[in-house]
Amino acid sequence: MLKKNFELLKKDGKARLGILHTPHGDIETPYFMPVGTQGTVKAIFPSDLIKMGTEIILANTYHLYLRPGLDIIKQAGGLHKFINWSLPILTDSGGFQVFSMSDLRKISEQGVEFRSHIDGSKHFFTPEKVIEIQDVLGSDIIMVLDECVHYPVEHDYAKASTELTLRWAKRSKVRFQELNLSNNCLLFGIVQGSTYKDLRKFSAESTVEIGLDGYALGGLSVGEPNELMYEMVSETEQYLPEDKPRYLMGVGTPEDLFACIEQGIDMFDCVLPTRNARNGQALTSVGKINLKNAGYRTDFSPLDPACDCYTCKNFTRAYLSHLFRAGEFLGLQLNSLHNLNFMLKLTEIIRRSISDGKFLEVKKDFLSKYKTSYQEKDV
Amino acid sequence: MLKKNFELLKKDGKARLGILHTPHGDIETPYFMPVGTQGTVKAIFPSDLIKMGTEIILANTYHLYLRPGLDIIKQAGGLHKFINWSLPILTDSGGFQVFSMSDLRKISEQGVEFRSHIDGSKHFFTPEKVIEIQDVLGSDIIMVLDECVHYPVEHDYAKASTELTLRWAKRSKVRFQELNLSNNCLLFGIVQGSTYKDLRKFSAESTVEIGLDGYALGGLSVGEPNELMYEMVSETEQYLPEDKPRYLMGVGTPEDLFACIEQGIDMFDCVLPTRNARNGQALTSVGKINLKNAGYRTDFSPLDPACDCYTCKNFTRAYLSHLFRAGEFLGLQLNSLHNLNFMLKLTEIIRRSISDGKFLEVKKDFLSKYKTSYQEKDV
Repeated sequence: MLKKNFELLKKDGKARLGILHTPHGDIETPYFMPVGTQGTVKAIFPSDLIKMGTEIILANTYHLYLRPGLDIIKQAGGLHKFINWSLPILTDSGGFQVFSMSDLRKISEQGVEFRSHIDGSKHFFTPEKVIEIQDVLGSDIIMVLDECVHYPVEHDYAKASTELTLRWAKRSKVRFQELNLSNNCLLFGIVQGSTYKDLRKFSAESTVEIGLDGYALGGLSVGEPNELMYEMVSETEQYLPEDKPRYLMGVGTPEDLFACIEQGIDMFDCVLPTRNARNGQALTSVGKINLKNAGYRTDFSPLDPACDCYTCKNFTRAYLSHLFRAGEFLGLQLNSLHNLNFMLKLTEIIRRSISDGKFLEVKKDFLSKYKTSYQEKDV
Repeated sequence: MLKKNFELLKKDGKARLGILHTPHGDIETPYFMPVGTQGTVKAIFPSDLIKMGTEIILANTYHLYLRPGLDIIKQAGGLHKFINWSLPILTDSGGFQVFSMSDLRKISEQGVEFRSHIDGSKHFFTPEKVIEIQDVLGSDIIMVLDECVHYPVEHDYAKASTELTLRWAKRSKVRFQELNLSNNCLLFGIVQGSTYKDLRKFSAESTVEIGLDGYALGGLSVGEPNELMYEMVSETEQYLPEDKPRYLMGVGTPEDLFACIEQGIDMFDCVLPTRNARNGQALTSVGKINLKNAGYRTDFSPLDPACDCYTCKNFTRAYLSHLFRAGEFLGLQLNSLHNLNFMLKLTEIIRRSISDGKFLEVKKDFLSKYKTSYQEKDV
């Protein structure tokens, strides 16, 4: 954490253009990171991820620790080799999954005990253990263990939880330094505080004080209204240092990206573009559409005429509609490819707009075409 | 049916090397045709089909007629355009599907009434209508409507059914000629007769007498022992003309291909390579393996070291095993790609062996390595 891993190249308002250096390569920011929870971005070939310009993927500590397990990944020579991915990998700490997926979790000062959602087996995560696991995985960007609280939550609980997350972050850094990982990968802290401004301020300032390679905003997009999320992002951002990347976890939609990049966020991840793709929802430059709606059965235009992906260059909405109606895998494969490409191209456009000093102009133009509600044909 | 659509280039014993000409291109025989029942070879991108050397795909009249329906395919400009496939398409008549999938079928001299397996709606197929449907689809190779009987079936029923299929084939040719399709596509007849030698002889001789562009062997691989199937192939083949292609429907395994090509069969199709792939079964040069078995969790070798496909060049059995255990789409995508590539490469090897006059040698060599039972690690 002594090295300079982030270069802020330019600002346009609070929107930032940067480069993040990691052991397996650089990431241009702002960036939307494809989610590969279990060591695969669902239904997309790694070669297609490369073709669409993916610079980093996410994987999940909780999931990979439970399955296939660390022994197997260690034997493979780390996660990069196990999944054959030579570019950067950020691993989430598993905090969110422990709190959202596993049963019977018991939280204490020491860490969190939980039962596997797969087989009910009992496990114990400490901040130190989670760093060690991510060391075995060989992550480029390691996340600290945090407690991710639900929304809404009372101020008292949120305050105690934020303080616990802070103490865990300090222990994480100690273990990170003991393992001498600091020359090979990056350690990111996570700012919590639910939707309370005082807690966000406290969490941001005290986490920054620890001195980490980047700062994530956690506990957002967990059910609170969008405007409240944007407010918390703005509230938090002012306490974060200029020379470190800011990562808004679990966000978001095209609208979210514009709103939060405008507030100075550099990195995002979200399962929605691929999850919704599998359900037939497609992102297009004129808004979201649902391919299962009847009107698309006879729509022989491309999914998005403005898009250059394999799906849009080769197939019609009518064919995609048929594939979804017939329950064919190809439908979700083609739509996943398109939606992820859409998000990656969108951040590319945004980066260019910041470079050109035209962020707000491009935002306005994009949003005027992109409708936030479904643009549906008759169902 | 006046043109010469098939060239027999060479024989090695009864094994035949040939080229089949169709409106959308040539097919080298012997050939294994990938099955794209609903207008997609399950879980495989068309671009990957092309890369692995696919020269023709199958589609299914029954399925496409019911969904998306002929109106939509007609509006799209035919099946090739609807699915964006520029190479040949063979459409099965739907006979097999009507008799195996639909409810309440009632068969008469005129045709067959059935209920859709999708919505229970009532439909009536006649031999003529099935030709008309395939005309709308724009098939390169049209199959006649036949009755595909179960195994075992009594001789009396099989005899009456074979005679009906013959009368339907005659009506099919009349409609095919009326529609003036003969310059644009090929019409194949189907030899039935269950497992009765006298009926196979009768069906083959009388179907050939009609004069068609190719002859399929139907009603096999429907539950009878393998040796009985091979016997029926041999029995039938002797009555088929040298100058027309022979297509064994719904077959088969690598062993089946060798056995039946040795008997003079030119074309095959089977859903097993892709269906089994989705269940974790992989074809390799040393036999079938099931990726769900525990031993593969720590097997860091490629699926098949002898294979040149994307899956084998990039991923290990351990990773594929993880993907199947984790229920990830990528597992079935990678395995489908591999299995189909395996079958296509196998027929390529067989074609070369015939060309070199070494069919039996190559057969012996392949089968000595390829075990017919599962070569499983500890489950």
